[in-house]
Amino acid sequence: MSLQPVLIAGQWRAARSTEIFHAANPATDETLPGEFPVSSWADCDAVLNAAAEAANSLRVTPLEQIAQFLTRFAERIEARKADLVELAHAETGLPKAPRLGDVELPRTTNQLRQAAAAALEGSWAMPTIDTKLNIRSMLAPLGPVWVFGPNNFPFAFNGIAGGDFAAAIASGNPVIAKGNTSHPGTSQWLAEEAFAAVTEAGLPPATVQLIYRTSHADGERLAADPRTGALAYTGSRSAGLKLKAAAEQAGKPIYVELSSVNPVLILPGALAERGAKLAEEFTGSCLMGTGQFCTSPSFIVLFAGQAAEQFIGAAKQKLETTPPTPLLSASVRRSLEASVQTLRAAGAELVCGGSPMPAPGSRFANTLLRVSGEKFLTTPEKLQTEAFGNASLVVVVRDAAQAAQVLEHLEGNLTGCVYSDTQGADDALYNQLAPLLRQRVGRLLNDKMPTGVAVSAAMNHGGPFPATGHPGFTAVGIPASLRRFGALHCYDNVRPARLPAALQNRNPNGKMWRLIDGHWSQGDVVV
Amino acid sequence: MSLQPVLIAGQWRAARSTEIFHAANPATDETLPGEFPVSSWADCDAVLNAAAEAANSLRVTPLEQIAQFLTRFAERIEARKADLVELAHAETGLPKAPRLGDVELPRTTNQLRQAAAAALEGSWAMPTIDTKLNIRSMLAPLGPVWVFGPNNFPFAFNGIAGGDFAAAIASGNPVIAKGNTSHPGTSQWLAEEAFAAVTEAGLPPATVQLIYRTSHADGERLAADPRTGALAYTGSRSAGLKLKAAAEQAGKPIYVELSSVNPVLILPGALAERGAKLAEEFTGSCLMGTGQFCTSPSFIVLFAGQAAEQFIGAAKQKLETTPPTPLLSASVRRSLEASVQTLRAAGAELVCGGSPMPAPGSRFANTLLRVSGEKFLTTPEKLQTEAFGNASLVVVVRDAAQAAQVLEHLEGNLTGCVYSDTQGADDALYNQLAPLLRQRVGRLLNDKMPTGVAVSAAMNHGGPFPATGHPGFTAVGIPASLRRFGALHCYDNVRPARLPAALQNRNPNGKMWRLIDGHWSQGDVVV
Repeated sequence: MSLQPVLIAGQWRAARSTEIFHAANPATDETLPGEFPVSSWADCDAVLNAAAEAANSLRVTPLEQIAQFLTRFAERIEARKADLVELAHAETGLPKAPRLGDVELPRTTNQLRQAAAAALEGSWAMPTIDTKLNIRSMLAPLGPVWVFGPNNFPFAFNGIAGGDFAAAIASGNPVIAKGNTSHPGTSQWLAEEAFAAVTEAGLPPATVQLIYRTSHADGERLAADPRTGALAYTGSRSAGLKLKAAAEQAGKPIYVELSSVNPVLILPGALAERGAKLAEEFTGSCLMGTGQFCTSPSFIVLFAGQAAEQFIGAAKQKLETTPPTPLLSASVRRSLEASVQTLRAAGAELVCGGSPMPAPGSRFANTLLRVSGEKFLTTPEKLQTEAFGNASLVVVVRDAAQAAQVLEHLEGNLTGCVYSDTQGADDALYNQLAPLLRQRVGRLLNDKMPTGVAVSAAMNHGGPFPATGHPGFTAVGIPASLRRFGALHCYDNVRPARLPAALQNRNPNGKMWRLIDGHWSQGDVVV
Repeated sequence: MSLQPVLIAGQWRAARSTEIFHAANPATDETLPGEFPVSSWADCDAVLNAAAEAANSLRVTPLEQIAQFLTRFAERIEARKADLVELAHAETGLPKAPRLGDVELPRTTNQLRQAAAAALEGSWAMPTIDTKLNIRSMLAPLGPVWVFGPNNFPFAFNGIAGGDFAAAIASGNPVIAKGNTSHPGTSQWLAEEAFAAVTEAGLPPATVQLIYRTSHADGERLAADPRTGALAYTGSRSAGLKLKAAAEQAGKPIYVELSSVNPVLILPGALAERGAKLAEEFTGSCLMGTGQFCTSPSFIVLFAGQAAEQFIGAAKQKLETTPPTPLLSASVRRSLEASVQTLRAAGAELVCGGSPMPAPGSRFANTLLRVSGEKFLTTPEKLQTEAFGNASLVVVVRDAAQAAQVLEHLEGNLTGCVYSDTQGADDALYNQLAPLLRQRVGRLLNDKMPTGVAVSAAMNHGGPFPATGHPGFTAVGIPASLRRFGALHCYDNVRPARLPAALQNRNPNGKMWRLIDGHWSQGDVVV
């Protein structure tokens, strides 16, 4: 096996490392070819120097080139699709079709193209002009962005190709990607295409850089480094909180996505009306990606009664008869097992599953647990443990008052769903309970499972802590996700020719939305 | 002297306290009547409970009532103007006219009225509608906001009446004000008017609450409390950083404004062209409010030469012949003396001033220091110490290269100014140096001192750390300052009648700007 290079300052070069790691196929336990380096501080220092220089160049780079890069990168990913899908499949165990090839890769290139359009149009920066006082402001790139991609979307959230990457680049910042440990080869290949596209578009070579891993200490050091502009992290809560503390102590904006159980509340009328259909919908959603979606519904609130028991029975049957698909890694399986143990120790009863499947492969039996509302309220914190993977917990509440108490004990989540009947029988309950859920989630759904996260301008893939670090931002959706990586630049009495194009009287492209004296307009400033 | 009450849950009541403090007149050193309590945790707990309840009520309160409150509060402040100005003058030493009565109080009521209009219109929440996918989102109140007001603006940034207060209320949140220690009486009287206006508008009684002080430990505890929604803090860097760490560890958004030396770069052409006028402009600005503006120009970069010496000479003469006005408190004077010592110990030479004035009153001689660019670069951190008050440092650089190095060593600041000549002789230097300053400040000015902070939609009163905690937000300017206190609420497939008014098809007031399918519009969603 050969030691793979890192991408630093426009060169694929040997890492300065002391340790190595390799990826494994979680479906077979086979070690995959290729050894990858754990970078030392020397590598971090080098990428930061190069990124700081690239950030300065990017500030004066025409937006057309940034858009061209994003578009060319999308095209190159599509051209290498078959290989990328094959490798991502080997590294993650996710199905080649439809998941990787027909859904995730097209989503990734769609995001890159949407980001290209947003970069070119420029409205994301919210140019604001006060003609009376001659004060003008807009968001501007804030500097090198570290993107720590998660394990569960090797394309769509990859540090070198995914949503955070696209948002950071489109807002004019260089990206330093920290490739996820479980799919380093996919990250490397994406970085090859990204770098080729950088060259084609004539951007500074260090616009995109890639290292694979660092020590935890170096992770905290790079988060606080003066050359760092911002960070985006999606991953485990414990590592994320350490990175967040280090970054925030140094005053660096950091956007973390840490964990979410995504509560689903099924009201009695809905259960009576279409319980069997809902059980089907729920199991389909909670097994999607072997339950390894950030928005997987793993916390279901039902009202006690025969309909609830039927729902649980139907879900059990479906879960037991569906062969478990592989988890992303042996480490995910270990965490899942530990989380299920935590839930059981706190009083949840096993309905089905609960154990790892025999080798080969990192599989876990499709798992359902249940707990009464009363029991939940005795240890609400433990019983909200995220069991990342194919496990969900049903909380069976006695009545509306207990349902309200359960909701009031929820931490911040990405999503929350309420199912109600179509004839209005659940409306009073909805009005009582939905406001409690609303305050604790970023996205509230009706009659729909949360696993689809559309790339929409109105999307919120974010939520109150600890789902994410700040409830005002979304990681998915353009242009809002770009604004995370902008610093507000105000120009007070600055001479006209010295203003950025977006703040001059003339609308630079006739399409940019600007807030001029309180009115949003695509026109020029009328003088 | 009588112990003054705190305002908790709609009652003016005795504080649960163990300590007391009193205000002093900094112009005379006289102790002012009225003893004020240092609240214990019991008070913090009570305000948090009441605020959490008020937050829930406010979410369903018609916007008209919130706007009515803000307007009535402004009217009540105006009706009590003479008394308020008298008391604020006694507590702060700031002149009654023009400063307190003709500038700061009208600014305060103007802010409240602008906030009322913004609350009513609703555009601040950036309602975003994707009609194809039926996903809709907007910013919504995130819960009780603690406002820690600074010492330097007893009206305009007061925790119970100032910019942060107005922004938090207009975005639908209750405010818990932590009155500043140096003007507790003014805060109390403003709270009386605020509470009367709350009652008139029929808002929940705990929409506004006031305590004066807590222990530092309780401060960190309240920042991290689950009932806290967010915090806004303007004050000393050391206390602010502790509060920030406590809040962020608990995942609470906190907006801090910590310190700023507000660099001013005067290019050689401008100095040659109008040096005497600029010296006049500079001294006027740096003595404004005895130099106790957040945006006071206390770091001036000049190019070495005869014109620079003339500028320094003219400034010295003006500073020496202007009688020093009082500082805000004895504590400010102690800090100023210590900061000047720090600057001198790091190599700055005294041009004039440098010592406290004899009693009575907390006055300090108008102070100017100077240091060479070379010397500055040996200890750039110490030589950027904020000397809050009437002291400024001139850095005399050898040439453009050294000027660039000095700028590159600057921390984040609220403002940065560049003066250049009117004939274009400075243009090349401007193009070289302004981009370096741009990255390190929130507001870049041309040919203008930074002390005026207009309440404009395009204003940025914010900047890179440590000026503030996040470079993307402003504390002044409506509607942007309101967005700090919003959580992003997304509605996915939610039934039409259940949507907030701002997200329904019909524009609720015909004035609200909404981003509908990529177009900003004041119209209805066309179905």
